[in-house]
Amino acid sequence: MTNLSVPHLDLPAYIREIGARARVAARVLAGASTQAKNTALLETAAAIRRNADKLLSSNGEDVSAARAAGQDNAFVDRLMLKASSVSAMAEGLEQIASLADPVGEISDLKYRPSGIQVGRMRVPLGVVGIVYESRPNVTADAAALCLKSGNACILRGGSEAWHSNHAIAESVRAGLLAAELPQEAVQLIATTDRAAVGLLATMDRYVDVLVPRGGKSLIRRIADEATVPVIKHLDGVCHVFIDEHADVDMAIRIADNAKTQRYSPCNTMETLLVHAKIAPQLLPPLCRIYLEKGVELRGDAAACELIPQMVAATDEDWTTEYLAPILAIRIVESLDAAIDHIARYGSQHTEAIVSENYANAMRFLREVDSSSVMVNASTRFADGFEYGLGAEIGISTNKLHARGPVGLEGLTSQKWVVLGSGQIRS
Amino acid sequence: MTNLSVPHLDLPAYIREIGARARVAARVLAGASTQAKNTALLETAAAIRRNADKLLSSNGEDVSAARAAGQDNAFVDRLMLKASSVSAMAEGLEQIASLADPVGEISDLKYRPSGIQVGRMRVPLGVVGIVYESRPNVTADAAALCLKSGNACILRGGSEAWHSNHAIAESVRAGLLAAELPQEAVQLIATTDRAAVGLLATMDRYVDVLVPRGGKSLIRRIADEATVPVIKHLDGVCHVFIDEHADVDMAIRIADNAKTQRYSPCNTMETLLVHAKIAPQLLPPLCRIYLEKGVELRGDAAACELIPQMVAATDEDWTTEYLAPILAIRIVESLDAAIDHIARYGSQHTEAIVSENYANAMRFLREVDSSSVMVNASTRFADGFEYGLGAEIGISTNKLHARGPVGLEGLTSQKWVVLGSGQIRS
Repeated sequence: MTNLSVPHLDLPAYIREIGARARVAARVLAGASTQAKNTALLETAAAIRRNADKLLSSNGEDVSAARAAGQDNAFVDRLMLKASSVSAMAEGLEQIASLADPVGEISDLKYRPSGIQVGRMRVPLGVVGIVYESRPNVTADAAALCLKSGNACILRGGSEAWHSNHAIAESVRAGLLAAELPQEAVQLIATTDRAAVGLLATMDRYVDVLVPRGGKSLIRRIADEATVPVIKHLDGVCHVFIDEHADVDMAIRIADNAKTQRYSPCNTMETLLVHAKIAPQLLPPLCRIYLEKGVELRGDAAACELIPQMVAATDEDWTTEYLAPILAIRIVESLDAAIDHIARYGSQHTEAIVSENYANAMRFLREVDSSSVMVNASTRFADGFEYGLGAEIGISTNKLHARGPVGLEGLTSQKWVVLGSGQIRS
Repeated sequence: MTNLSVPHLDLPAYIREIGARARVAARVLAGASTQAKNTALLETAAAIRRNADKLLSSNGEDVSAARAAGQDNAFVDRLMLKASSVSAMAEGLEQIASLADPVGEISDLKYRPSGIQVGRMRVPLGVVGIVYESRPNVTADAAALCLKSGNACILRGGSEAWHSNHAIAESVRAGLLAAELPQEAVQLIATTDRAAVGLLATMDRYVDVLVPRGGKSLIRRIADEATVPVIKHLDGVCHVFIDEHADVDMAIRIADNAKTQRYSPCNTMETLLVHAKIAPQLLPPLCRIYLEKGVELRGDAAACELIPQMVAATDEDWTTEYLAPILAIRIVESLDAAIDHIARYGSQHTEAIVSENYANAMRFLREVDSSSVMVNASTRFADGFEYGLGAEIGISTNKLHARGPVGLEGLTSQKWVVLGSGQIRS
């Protein structure tokens, strides 16, 4: 890992230099053996455990500075590392080492009438840029996922986590060294200048894809200025639709879990749609649970009539990602009305139907155009670990390339391979 | 098919209106049955056969106008339809009807420890924009591929093919009508104003992907101004590398075919790399064939020494897509040197190695970062039909999403589907 300290900085030249080095390293990484990549990951984990004290004291510097700058508790929480988070970071690296290497896998190899065999080989994307905010553990996670998928990466962490990120970077450097992989495989941008992000996002020649991790304003800003492809989602306005043919107990369990299991994740339900025929039976017991847990309920007129504690929802509520104990509830007359509501107000992230009716479940699965669509399960399952990806670098609501949770496979693409025995075209 | 004739045009409003209509139609198309889509395709084919005379006379108008405008023969060739090209167009539609419908296909459905089943469903991209030049058959081909893959499309053909395109569009309209699919599923932009392309390419809200078909200047212009993703390739500087362990007869056959079978396709070889150890044996008989066929040879110093008729290549030759009977030839000292040459000068389109050595073939396959990489086969096989895609809308050298020949699957993406039985997250 290169960690340049550049006092008098020609920023564009510096970022270009980082890009050019990453491009060279990417070719080495693409051809690196699974064993070399795993050695780098395991040696990085060992170095992180070994350097835990130093890492925690570097993090302490960042935390003190953040407190002195008057940052709030939530911010400090995201920034702060504990002994347990340091070992979780090391375990994360070990776990990524244990995942299957996707690179080089050939699939669907078939003979064609001409006699050639045609298939596809999974290959790294090349150079991945990661832009993130205050969580220092992203430094280790993102580097590990890129490394395992054979990509070089360029990391741009938040300035608040400067010392923490550099301490983690030192361990990555040790890991790469032990595996005899190029230090430029993982580079940390050594400037807090915000303009660096804009330069990275428009450097098509050296960056193949950008993954922003953090709050919506960061992602919006990057998406707006980027000319390189960005793997991202902006909003998670997730819906659960309770069909008229739902099992009421199951519906209550899922609607409760989708909202209250945790309020801040992007896959938490923000709007509950209930079929009019089941609402009188379903909403009173379900809303009792919500109210006991302190969830503020905002409903349309029909819902407010059923539940007196509910306040009237405005049109804005249907498009709001609360990330908080607030829930919008709407009563709909049909499956079509539910699908229409989701198409109009949703963010194409994750939606679920609760229904015992086969045809309705199949229509919802097929017609709802979101990155994850579920039947009889909580939206909270939309997650790389729950889907079996082993780890995730983010969730995408893009339509092209990776959709939904993005793991190692989302950091690769497929090229065509042709195995012949002298065939020519006639 | 909507075919608005707009005398006093507010162009941005008109293009937005087309986009909004396409977006609405896309939802219908995404849920359309395979049968409805096939009916539309077969009825369009029938209408094209039925209206062949009218189509040919409309085309005649375009051809006369092009001749009057002093267009060259190659241009008129691309524009002109014959009775045989009209039936080929109809056959193309019938053939796309016979392909398997990719939409709705669920793959890799697996149980997870939580009890949910997780898999992926293939879904349309939504709205596809196609911008093309003088070939009128693209109107039918592109509409058919988009329709079969469940996408709405917006077509922008060349102004020179105005009458031909509108005549074909009438048949598509009849096909959609017969299948009770919305006319807005296939819209032809009814203006020759060039600014329409720029508007289409930046209308992220209504266009999910753009496919330019035509010459490099068209594609370059669109790629430069587009904010929507573009499926494209700019250059096809394809290489064949003759390894020291090649079978000489096979190498001659492949190198001959890759260059001379046709000169204008993008998958034709433009640079031949030959291992120094085999060059004295290989180049004299191979170059004799080229010279007999009138191919101009441009070589590096070592190659020129072997073949007196060769002229010296400049650095520019290594990056030039001739699309003509000209070939650049370079002698390299090793497999590594060949891979380096391709990485430095190539266009990531299609490259082939000719070798009987297993390790060299495997390294070439793995390390060459092109959309198609071949062993012992002619680069001319890089084609949707030869790969078994049934048809192709273009060839992509993008790294994200579709790479290489793009067929129906490249016009779709995959969303995650979760089938549960009441699971919640703990």
